[in-house]
Amino acid sequence: MTLSLSDIKAARERIAPYVIKTPLLRLRNLEETLGCEVYVKLENMQRTNAFKLRGVMNTILQLTDEELERGVVTSSSGNHGHAVSYASKLLGIKATIAVPDTAPPFKLEKIKEYGAEIIPTTVEERFKLQEKLVEEHGYTLIPPFNDYRVMAGQGTVGLEILEQLPDADHIFVPASGGGLVGGIATAVKESADHVKVHGVEPANLPKFAASLENNEITQVENKGTIADGLVSIIPGEKNFPIVQKYVDTFYTVSEEAMKKGQKLLLMEAKILAEISSSIGIGGVLNKEIEVKPEDKICFVITGGNLGFDQLTYIRDTEY
Amino acid sequence: MTLSLSDIKAARERIAPYVIKTPLLRLRNLEETLGCEVYVKLENMQRTNAFKLRGVMNTILQLTDEELERGVVTSSSGNHGHAVSYASKLLGIKATIAVPDTAPPFKLEKIKEYGAEIIPTTVEERFKLQEKLVEEHGYTLIPPFNDYRVMAGQGTVGLEILEQLPDADHIFVPASGGGLVGGIATAVKESADHVKVHGVEPANLPKFAASLENNEITQVENKGTIADGLVSIIPGEKNFPIVQKYVDTFYTVSEEAMKKGQKLLLMEAKILAEISSSIGIGGVLNKEIEVKPEDKICFVITGGNLGFDQLTYIRDTEY
Repeated sequence: MTLSLSDIKAARERIAPYVIKTPLLRLRNLEETLGCEVYVKLENMQRTNAFKLRGVMNTILQLTDEELERGVVTSSSGNHGHAVSYASKLLGIKATIAVPDTAPPFKLEKIKEYGAEIIPTTVEERFKLQEKLVEEHGYTLIPPFNDYRVMAGQGTVGLEILEQLPDADHIFVPASGGGLVGGIATAVKESADHVKVHGVEPANLPKFAASLENNEITQVENKGTIADGLVSIIPGEKNFPIVQKYVDTFYTVSEEAMKKGQKLLLMEAKILAEISSSIGIGGVLNKEIEVKPEDKICFVITGGNLGFDQLTYIRDTEY
Repeated sequence: MTLSLSDIKAARERIAPYVIKTPLLRLRNLEETLGCEVYVKLENMQRTNAFKLRGVMNTILQLTDEELERGVVTSSSGNHGHAVSYASKLLGIKATIAVPDTAPPFKLEKIKEYGAEIIPTTVEERFKLQEKLVEEHGYTLIPPFNDYRVMAGQGTVGLEILEQLPDADHIFVPASGGGLVGGIATAVKESADHVKVHGVEPANLPKFAASLENNEITQVENKGTIADGLVSIIPGEKNFPIVQKYVDTFYTVSEEAMKKGQKLLLMEAKILAEISSSIGIGGVLNKEIEVKPEDKICFVITGGNLGFDQLTYIRDTEY
């Protein structure tokens, strides 16, 4: 089994009542600065303010009545947990979320807001705890990325981009485990192979760059990143072969560039995005990714969940 | 002479090469909170990040060669000055701007950025100084609102809203001197009189509410407002009769409500707007303006020029 365009089309129909077809905007005010035609796909305006709801919804809507009755579980300190919590409330099922103690307070509040049961844990213990919960309570695990249903849901972003900007030249996708970039690349390459799809990951955690070079899944040293949505140190097993097959290029971007990108988006384009979402624009802005003036480039803005006080991180950033 | 739909249509063609047809988005994530269908017309994504460029461009493009050669002048501490400076650089003409010492540093930087000559002044002296500059140098004055060419330019926002959301029920327009609300009301009422157009002004400076009640132009006491784009204490002479004829209702909104609106837009809709732009959404949020769940309401987001440090004004605001 793998992922195909028809899975993504089915996902789109399945999740349509629950998600927003988010806007894709041209940002002419950034074009002189970035040196290309600039488009953004605004998943920060999605329900729960992140693309994660697409994959979560596509998975939960395929569970049996019995599975729904027992409830779902996941481990997350961020947007995935938020989406599982929101979806579970919407469908009236029980959700349990193992939240590591590294979760930013703002994201923890969002997970709590929809009434999921929170079980505190650590980054090291969280997957063990999650397995234990599955075994003991019969909960169904909703994985953040390493799952074909989740990837099919995330791939619906790609279908929308093709409709909204059929003559896109390049799509830049922030990458952590590979759920979003795998889904989008499948949707795009199986429908319109003139559009190039690129993954972008923190230079501190170049797991896809390393894995592609080694031609096998490779774990990288955890040097940490301020991009709290891009913390994976290893590609997902199911995601890597898809990325290998369909993604055109993988770029790595510095911490500084991400901050610059976030500030540019906020101050010049008037769009609030998470720092993880700003990695593509930051990379181009900081000349770590090369573009051409005639290129129509779509940057996927993956989420916008940040607390007001987190804005102070970029107070002194200059772009 | 007055303002008509055909002036606004001509303005639209005239300024088309220089302005952005800004996005009009539905913000489903705010609908439960605000209790209506929520749409925003995003002039904060306009060139110079405010609607002001429309009126300025429509005026300057109608000057004679001789007038262009002598240059233009205005007095402004904000978005109008920024637009005059930007337009003058674009067209290669000289601009002189009398800037009162109350101008926020961020806006002063924006005015300077495009190379206009800045003459420092005070709020009290600025109009006298402006007249003196017109007399001594033969500069042409570009008024901020009390001018039919300026109003025709601002009215193009109304034409775009009618195209982008033809079944709008209500349009809420922030009002200071009356240039934008007068222009939009003319465009809308002369094309589609089923759409209601409302002005919104700070409760601290209710000059339109007072003037409408008195049936004549009335100056109000200057109680000040944090909305630095809405500081007029008297409606424009040319604007008032148009507002009287075409605007359905005028609402006044508290200072607190504006701050709440700005924070809601930023944190939940991920859109950075000036506090002046947030007056309509803030009024509805704070129950100072009543709406119905089935209403399709378009809020005009007039600008997005604020310095990073100004965000601290809303750090402790709760919505």
